Amino acid sequence: MQQASAESIFKEFKEHSISEFFRKNSQMLGYSGKVRSLTTIVHEYVTNSLDACEEAGILPEISVSITEISENKYLITVSDNGPGIPSKLVGKAMATILAGTKFHRYLQQRGQQGIGAAGCTMYSLITTGKPIHVKSSTGKEGYECDISIDIKTNKPIMSNLEKRTEISSGTVIEGTFGDIKYEESDHGVYEYLKRTALSNPHTSIKLTSPDGKDYVFIRSVNEMPKRPKEIKPHPLGIGTNDLIDFAHKSESKKLSSFLVDTFSRVTPGKVTELKEFAKNIDFEKNPADLTWEEAEILVKSFKEIKWVAPEMDAMSTIGDKQIETAIKNILNPTFVSVVERKPRVFKGGIPFVVEAGIAYGGDAGKKTSAIKVDDEKVQNVEGSILRFANKVPMLFDASSCAITEAAKSIQWKRYGITNFDEEPVSVMVNISSVYVPYSGVGKQAVAQEDEIVEEIKLALMDCGRTLQRYISGVKNKKEQESRYKTIMRYVDQLSSDLAEITGNESEDIKHGLISIIENRYKELFTEQTDLA
Amino acid sequence: MQQASAESIFKEFKEHSISEFFRKNSQMLGYSGKVRSLTTIVHEYVTNSLDACEEAGILPEISVSITEISENKYLITVSDNGPGIPSKLVGKAMATILAGTKFHRYLQQRGQQGIGAAGCTMYSLITTGKPIHVKSSTGKEGYECDISIDIKTNKPIMSNLEKRTEISSGTVIEGTFGDIKYEESDHGVYEYLKRTALSNPHTSIKLTSPDGKDYVFIRSVNEMPKRPKEIKPHPLGIGTNDLIDFAHKSESKKLSSFLVDTFSRVTPGKVTELKEFAKNIDFEKNPADLTWEEAEILVKSFKEIKWVAPEMDAMSTIGDKQIETAIKNILNPTFVSVVERKPRVFKGGIPFVVEAGIAYGGDAGKKTSAIKVDDEKVQNVEGSILRFANKVPMLFDASSCAITEAAKSIQWKRYGITNFDEEPVSVMVNISSVYVPYSGVGKQAVAQEDEIVEEIKLALMDCGRTLQRYISGVKNKKEQESRYKTIMRYVDQLSSDLAEITGNESEDIKHGLISIIENRYKELFTEQTDLA
Repeated sequence: MQQASAESIFKEFKEHSISEFFRKNSQMLGYSGKVRSLTTIVHEYVTNSLDACEEAGILPEISVSITEISENKYLITVSDNGPGIPSKLVGKAMATILAGTKFHRYLQQRGQQGIGAAGCTMYSLITTGKPIHVKSSTGKEGYECDISIDIKTNKPIMSNLEKRTEISSGTVIEGTFGDIKYEESDHGVYEYLKRTALSNPHTSIKLTSPDGKDYVFIRSVNEMPKRPKEIKPHPLGIGTNDLIDFAHKSESKKLSSFLVDTFSRVTPGKVTELKEFAKNIDFEKNPADLTWEEAEILVKSFKEIKWVAPEMDAMSTIGDKQIETAIKNILNPTFVSVVERKPRVFKGGIPFVVEAGIAYGGDAGKKTSAIKVDDEKVQNVEGSILRFANKVPMLFDASSCAITEAAKSIQWKRYGITNFDEEPVSVMVNISSVYVPYSGVGKQAVAQEDEIVEEIKLALMDCGRTLQRYISGVKNKKEQESRYKTIMRYVDQLSSDLAEITGNESEDIKHGLISIIENRYKELFTEQTDLA
Repeated sequence: MQQASAESIFKEFKEHSISEFFRKNSQMLGYSGKVRSLTTIVHEYVTNSLDACEEAGILPEISVSITEISENKYLITVSDNGPGIPSKLVGKAMATILAGTKFHRYLQQRGQQGIGAAGCTMYSLITTGKPIHVKSSTGKEGYECDISIDIKTNKPIMSNLEKRTEISSGTVIEGTFGDIKYEESDHGVYEYLKRTALSNPHTSIKLTSPDGKDYVFIRSVNEMPKRPKEIKPHPLGIGTNDLIDFAHKSESKKLSSFLVDTFSRVTPGKVTELKEFAKNIDFEKNPADLTWEEAEILVKSFKEIKWVAPEMDAMSTIGDKQIETAIKNILNPTFVSVVERKPRVFKGGIPFVVEAGIAYGGDAGKKTSAIKVDDEKVQNVEGSILRFANKVPMLFDASSCAITEAAKSIQWKRYGITNFDEEPVSVMVNISSVYVPYSGVGKQAVAQEDEIVEEIKLALMDCGRTLQRYISGVKNKKEQESRYKTIMRYVDQLSSDLAEITGNESEDIKHGLISIIENRYKELFTEQTDLA
């Protein structure tokens, strides 16, 4: 038996960088499978462009161009008309994992972590050995440069930086990537961009595919969506450690003013209420001295008080009209019902909003089964569940998503659906939040947290009730149609019989009867308002 | 419209530590849901103990004790008889995410990343504000200390370090954790430890549950499992970037000797074969000067040559006998079939081995449906698919696992199973590798990579063929039983009729007939060898 002492085992002890970690585990960033890897790259750049345009108040114009270089190797160019990136930060923005403007803010954006773009730079490096190329201008300075990542240190390697006065705005990123594949499937870039355009109607997106075709998703709304406000956390859902963290970082002199300054909906009046539940706590003390025990008591007290719900204006939703349009566009159904719920609070004091729609008929409920392309197994997509988070379509990892879980757990029979998997029914759900708890770094599924699953279920049940009325209406109409047809079959015979009995003209009687019957069944002859 | 320039947007630009990232996204480490969070903590400490004992050649003795402090708050103590941790490294080992002895080695271990223990320290801090307490001895030094983590910097905070000569070996970790819950469900600690003991029969595990009960899983094998060898990567599956990385770090003077020294199965003879396919490459050149283009050619050439399969001795499997024992213990089935496949190579040149078993009858195929405990939704476990990776049971995230995918994609009808979800059939799969590509940091599912799914399918199909013979045997036996019973019904009447015709004694004829019939159906009276 080979023996090893602690000393010899721990000779191997080393520290590693986050970039080394994600290089080894690139599947966790969404780089697994060639088709998915390509969609991941486009997703990362496009969401960054949308976020930047939204923050700068610019109606986004985004172009994505994909050119095949050799087998499974492509040149990808994504350009936008956004505010640009200052040259002194572009290196870190593009090639330092966990660096960015988003991680620490209470602001709803598509990106959250500062991982995506640096992940692309790394994927370009490990599959082609090449840097990415960036052209950008903030209006004040235009430049272009090459950027790669030093995986060992998680630091950018910039080269060939040159001023370019002719570039006046926006950002263009060009990269070559290997081990990817363009494909027009439900998991491909086309479908991703189409759904992105539908959930972001203020955006114009152009796709040039490897075979040279141009697809343009035209802007349908010429106004910027309501800008989500940067918010304070809501006291409900704040944990003890969060509270300690805020308190010890605070510049307030007193605990009471710290609470009012730091959290949403906390007023001096509410502090007075809190004092009732936290009698032993000195609200005059410096928040820097707040102890764990005191923080625990405060967190408990938060839950004893009635709070105004979180501000809706922290959230930027797709909107019910647009969800209806998106559903009609994707599924061409005979019936749609849409609902937007009130904001709820998730743990950490973070509000979120669920929007949902149900479609019936048309292409709703169509199965998109597992596709086998070349040597590559493409994951099964849940064709009947369209999933979005912060207006970004999620095309992968359906089975581990809170939206799938909620949709599957509903008792669809109550809503006139005997078998959700077999009938022509689809749901679309968008969850908007300052912080969406994704189940993985690749952001393709929302973690199955209880509050979120429950809220999605309630939204779908809301829509379900409307659907139930529609379906029973359809059934009713079918029954009436059948009765109408049965009666009409007797009209000829009955008219001539009545003519003999009464001595009236058979044709007159017939017209009279038809008019009575048609009046009785007049609903069958008016255009049905399917899209109630 | 609120406008923001690039300069004002990028004022918020910051870098964040990996610990800040995982604090915000603790669900990615397995901290989602109270029951799962507790299992995650025990899983992290126990796998570290098993790895340390295995490396030191010590038969593991592990104790896990869980004491309730208050609602959803517990004291957890995990102690082992392992080699101990040197005091100068214990801080980083317990409180620096991505630090450890495992990340960079080609050695099969349960831990891979150096995240688990530091994640526990962080979870203790954010749910209770407390440090963990460690007692350890390497034999040369005994000590105890408190350790917490500075989340902002990902550095340990050590305090109260004291020498303890009375501690002579092993490691004890004590921590208090909030937002967790002990529960005896399929997702709980008891089930986790039971399955761990079954897949690690050389281990003795004791669990003391919060109600004071002791459960002991006794060691059933008194020998250490074959120690997995630290290996070199296999040339198949090596990517261009991997090759460049190895080459530029190499101390070899020549490309040819670099290849022989760095990779498994590369001999001078194989280098000569390689030269045939890579004619333009100078094999005398310094590997430090290897270009991307040359590396690409080499990687392609690797695929043109026949290679000896990777060394099996890099892998430590559960073993077919023990898989059978585990399956019998968990499911008490009437039939088991087990197979261990040959090693295969996954991308990055990493070999892996799949072991699988199928159980039929008994508790096999029992449904463990979604359980709702308090306010908490426990995820549905796939009761009919027992999943292991490197001998560690995986209890969560079944739906996103390659093992589930493989099991569900098999045409079970071929193997006598009409409906896998409804019939009394279960599968158990263990995948062993130097690097298992988990789908998430919490290591509860194996990513659905093609090579792995395919290999698991082949293993299950192997077992399936034996199952098919058993099931058709069972059906055959049932038919025979029914014929036997039918014939026996006529024996009395036939005997007396024949007695009348022949004048022989009815009883004699009856005995004769029964003996003929029983001889014909003798298989029905011998003990069936169910566990073929």
